[in-house]
Amino acid sequence: MTKNIAILPGDGIGREVTAEAVKLIQVVAASRGETWNLEEGLIGGSALDATGSPLPEETVRLCRAADAVLLGAVGGPKWDHLPGDKRPEAGLLGIRKALEVYANLRPIRTWPGLLLASPLKPELVEGVDFIIVRELTGGLYFGQPKARLDGGEAVVDTLHYTRAEIRRVVKVAFELAKGRQGRLTSVDKANVLESSRVWREVVEEVASEYPGVLVEHLLVDNAAMQIITRPKTFDVIVTENMFGDILSDEAAVITGSIGMLPSASLGEAGPGLYEPVHGSAPDIAGQGLANPLATFLSVALMMRHSLHLPEAADAIEQAVHGVIERGVRTRDLARSGEAFVKTADVSAMVCEDV
Amino acid sequence: MTKNIAILPGDGIGREVTAEAVKLIQVVAASRGETWNLEEGLIGGSALDATGSPLPEETVRLCRAADAVLLGAVGGPKWDHLPGDKRPEAGLLGIRKALEVYANLRPIRTWPGLLLASPLKPELVEGVDFIIVRELTGGLYFGQPKARLDGGEAVVDTLHYTRAEIRRVVKVAFELAKGRQGRLTSVDKANVLESSRVWREVVEEVASEYPGVLVEHLLVDNAAMQIITRPKTFDVIVTENMFGDILSDEAAVITGSIGMLPSASLGEAGPGLYEPVHGSAPDIAGQGLANPLATFLSVALMMRHSLHLPEAADAIEQAVHGVIERGVRTRDLARSGEAFVKTADVSAMVCEDV
Ligand SMILES: CC(C)[C@H](C(=O)O)[C@@H](O)C(=O)O
Ligand SMILES: CC(C)[C@H](C(=O)O)[C@@H](O)C(=O)O
Repeated sequence: MTKNIAILPGDGIGREVTAEAVKLIQVVAASRGETWNLEEGLIGGSALDATGSPLPEETVRLCRAADAVLLGAVGGPKWDHLPGDKRPEAGLLGIRKALEVYANLRPIRTWPGLLLASPLKPELVEGVDFIIVRELTGGLYFGQPKARLDGGEAVVDTLHYTRAEIRRVVKVAFELAKGRQGRLTSVDKANVLESSRVWREVVEEVASEYPGVLVEHLLVDNAAMQIITRPKTFDVIVTENMFGDILSDEAAVITGSIGMLPSASLGEAGPGLYEPVHGSAPDIAGQGLANPLATFLSVALMMRHSLHLPEAADAIEQAVHGVIERGVRTRDLARSGEAFVKTADVSAMVCEDV
Repeated sequence: MTKNIAILPGDGIGREVTAEAVKLIQVVAASRGETWNLEEGLIGGSALDATGSPLPEETVRLCRAADAVLLGAVGGPKWDHLPGDKRPEAGLLGIRKALEVYANLRPIRTWPGLLLASPLKPELVEGVDFIIVRELTGGLYFGQPKARLDGGEAVVDTLHYTRAEIRRVVKVAFELAKGRQGRLTSVDKANVLESSRVWREVVEEVASEYPGVLVEHLLVDNAAMQIITRPKTFDVIVTENMFGDILSDEAAVITGSIGMLPSASLGEAGPGLYEPVHGSAPDIAGQGLANPLATFLSVALMMRHSLHLPEAADAIEQAVHGVIERGVRTRDLARSGEAFVKTADVSAMVCEDV
């Protein structure tokens, strides 16, 4: 059976890591005696340069017709001066919205071999293993009005949610918690925001359908503290779009290995969108120094959630685990003075083992 | 010369720490041969219980007539089920708005004797010394509409700023940076929010008046990472209300000593509002276990910023420094097994030394 996968390299190291991921995907297909259909689309700054739009209609069509979408990263200093709707990021927000992938899953885990890279004390981060579920297509990112007022003297952004938007992402989080340790932390700012009070109500409603899941509510400022002081105690965290943006990056850095963190963005039906958590890293782009493993782990999530190939997902995760345990390090993971390998080297090692 | 100081104990340990702060203030007054006028007002849950309002008109009048206001903390589980405008927190937001204290200063520093309490590796936090300036009377906290729509099926909060509101708090931050190391980090989400794009424009405008200050812009998700990976490199950080709420609590916890962190909220004219960063800690309230030192350091800020008594501020800070260096620890600071002293004990030691 063939699969249709859209590949959106984007900008900076996004191009390098997706190029390696294409090899990995082809290894998986070949091992099954299949030939899959991988097609590239433009997004972000490179799409801007080529077409004048950060998200050409052609790319949206390609993604909608695919079983899954793999995205590298978008953005770079070259496009930073452009107005909001002309930035590379508008392409990213646009494809999330076009595919309506409202549940952004970010697994946060530490790797035994990489503990010392964490800024936190090793005893705090050893064994950290939780998932952040971030609402991805609503809230402050998309609410209207988002505009200047009074001849430019004032400005407004709008945090808008419907109960249905909250319920569907909260359900994803409960389902995940049910299949894990059965603990869900919902993060809001219910002591200040009306939207957070509705958020909390919906979580309580959905909770009644999941008697086996233990629910805790944290205020976002408190959550920003707890993620640092007790990262090991979380199982699944669910929160709205902007809080999720901030907390998931905070959580990523405590692992000490942001170059190892994948993400999956899922909707009701239609293709999932898979991307590494790290950005386009313009400072090291084009030098073969990027770590492709977050993208490889994103491919594993794609195998599991969109392509229904759990054994392929396991095989990729085990291969990545293997190279890390053998001490292979890309530059971002190497301690100062330690030897490191290049993007293509570590990629070849993983592809060999899959 | 007499001084008029409004004392708002609030709830939980807020009552205990302000009671000790009153003694400290009286020691300072006595040492100057003066008698100051300290008057208590109701706020938060205890105001709700006594008057039905979290911020009685009487309290607002008292504060407006004062030279400075000292606040303990508000909130507790007893009042958590109440609707938004009836919560203790509404009292806190109300007094900030009534006094228009738009610039919330949160100094973040580590204490040599307390380094090991940090969840971060000691070499990362040793010598951390920066100030977060958080906009306190605008943004998502106060913007209208903040309401349920469509018969409760949707909900909206509004992030609203005027350029004037942004400019005045940004100026406070530049002034601080000028008197410190001359480095300012402005935090926004300019790749997504229109309000952040205006925020960035205003920072650039004001920057032209401060050629000696080096300005850096960070996106909020990136800032949440950098605060953990390179806390020592910051001097002054300025940001809008909600981002400031999240980042300042995150920054507080990396010091390992949130019980030591003071804050000052300042407006154009009128009294400043001083409060410890920690909350009402209902779990330890009433047991004499609270650490009063964040409140004492808030009193020091009050001496400096509102009462124009810099020597008194220095004396308090030195006394606090002294007890910490002598190894005196309240329960929150003690390592497991280490002996600790009670609220009144550490308070008496500081008062003795001032
Ligand atoms: C690039 C930016 C628009 C994006 C976001 O804020 O969602 C990024 O930070 C992320 O988390 O994927
Ligand atoms: C209690 C709450 C309303 C308040 C805030 O969000 O401002 C608190 O978290 C703070 O930071 O002072």
